[in-house]
Amino acid sequence: MKQITVHAPATVANIVCGFDVLGLALNNPYDKLVMRLLPEKTIRIINKDNFMLPVEPEKNVFGGALLAMMRELDDNIGFEIESTKNIMPGSGIGSSAASAAGVVVGANHLLNNRFSKTDLVRFATYGEQVASGARHADNIAPCIYGGVTLIRSNDPLDIIPLNFPPLFVTVIHPQLEVKTSDARQILKKQILLKDAITQWGNVAGLVAGFMKEDYELIGRSLHDVLIEPVRSMLIPGFDELKKRSIEAGALGGGISGSGPSVFMLSKDEATAKKVEQAMRSVYEKIGVDFHIHLTTVNKSGVDVINAGQK
Amino acid sequence: MKQITVHAPATVANIVCGFDVLGLALNNPYDKLVMRLLPEKTIRIINKDNFMLPVEPEKNVFGGALLAMMRELDDNIGFEIESTKNIMPGSGIGSSAASAAGVVVGANHLLNNRFSKTDLVRFATYGEQVASGARHADNIAPCIYGGVTLIRSNDPLDIIPLNFPPLFVTVIHPQLEVKTSDARQILKKQILLKDAITQWGNVAGLVAGFMKEDYELIGRSLHDVLIEPVRSMLIPGFDELKKRSIEAGALGGGISGSGPSVFMLSKDEATAKKVEQAMRSVYEKIGVDFHIHLTTVNKSGVDVINAGQK
Repeated sequence: MKQITVHAPATVANIVCGFDVLGLALNNPYDKLVMRLLPEKTIRIINKDNFMLPVEPEKNVFGGALLAMMRELDDNIGFEIESTKNIMPGSGIGSSAASAAGVVVGANHLLNNRFSKTDLVRFATYGEQVASGARHADNIAPCIYGGVTLIRSNDPLDIIPLNFPPLFVTVIHPQLEVKTSDARQILKKQILLKDAITQWGNVAGLVAGFMKEDYELIGRSLHDVLIEPVRSMLIPGFDELKKRSIEAGALGGGISGSGPSVFMLSKDEATAKKVEQAMRSVYEKIGVDFHIHLTTVNKSGVDVINAGQK
Repeated sequence: MKQITVHAPATVANIVCGFDVLGLALNNPYDKLVMRLLPEKTIRIINKDNFMLPVEPEKNVFGGALLAMMRELDDNIGFEIESTKNIMPGSGIGSSAASAAGVVVGANHLLNNRFSKTDLVRFATYGEQVASGARHADNIAPCIYGGVTLIRSNDPLDIIPLNFPPLFVTVIHPQLEVKTSDARQILKKQILLKDAITQWGNVAGLVAGFMKEDYELIGRSLHDVLIEPVRSMLIPGFDELKKRSIEAGALGGGISGSGPSVFMLSKDEATAKKVEQAMRSVYEKIGVDFHIHLTTVNKSGVDVINAGQK
């Protein structure tokens, strides 16, 4: 039986000012899936970790994404997935996106790459729907494409990979729960035009900064006047975390996706390590448990490795 | 007496989705100024055209801009300006910005370039204030820098020149008046967050399109869901103008600044000529008088030429 191993990276959605449109992939952590093609229309999910995620396909992110793909297949085939999640569900670094993106890229590989990347993003958003109720692609796109991605439009889906300079990413994950749906609900539906102008000035600056490989411009553009002021209230010590990180040399950063993880970008590893120390000391002082990752931007997205026969 | 001739280009602010942050400079039309340094603190304005603009410095765009500069000078000097405006006031292609930007770049040249470009933009916005009551820089920045510019922030001023591919611009100027202040007043102060997200997706797409020299992406990003639906009501035949231009091959376009001029971008001259024909036929049919310009993006901004002695 044909068997593959898939690595699906964590991702940071929004990148501060680019709410719902920008995202980037991380080299660490990543989820591991072992997948096999089955000769019948079924989805079999085997959890190899301790997250106790549901295994019924309709209630599972893998299932939601695969069922969307299988609706466009006539073949009498199915998939078995052995899942080892390293990206903690609810961490805000694209845990559900990694499952959804990983499983559709793996399935497509087992089907000899019948579908385009845009198709795969579309299928994977049905996995996101199972997790959060919304078919958002801002983690899915960087997870599948790698690097930094822009979703110019969701309908029709228009994903633009952006050039970017070497970047080190420090991510701190406080061990507390912020539900994506709650984090979305507290946002105002109406905003001031003048604030929106400030925001799209920064979004434009951030895109230009990435493409010009201009670290200073990236730093100056990492400001969010709309979402962060509201959502950061859900994250203990947020302001201190940000202030200390920037003092330690970070270009800037903010809430990863809808939180609770907070990420900071740095232009070299030594700085990113100082930022890690600064973040640690803030959270040790206020006594919140946390995980911390020091990593770089993943350039290749979901990776199919170790393809072979069982 | 030292005398210079200055050419100050017309500009297109906003570039559809980039309200208040993006702008580009045109090779045609441009204003012509002849400037001389005077040995006393005075501003002498001589109009060589028929626009009957006021010559009192406090009421004049040249004066507003120059007075801002002169407040930062200790010298006992002044300027004489002979102005030939080719950019019609109220056309929406940066007539007041050309005056303000042209005069400060010229004055700086006469002063052996004491001030930075950012200083010059700042001074010139005081000229805009005389014209429209607001110190906006979205025409000033491309007029001084040339090319396509992003104003990431107004305070502090942060202007980012963007790369872009060759672009042909067709601009139609219906002979009717839309006051910048009126065009601003009809905008809603509150907008929906979801519309703002669509807008900054397009702003990001447009910046990426310019920098990647990706004409298709530029075209797909030239959509404005916030300002155009409101302001286009002030421009007769707007929807038809846009529809016919895009059928003729334009990448896209929309209202130039606050109107009434409408511009369209094309990737080659032949297409831009077809767009010109399409625009002409729409306005000939509805019987609105117009001027039309077919030009390219100006890369150098305000130009000091023919510097010499009188």
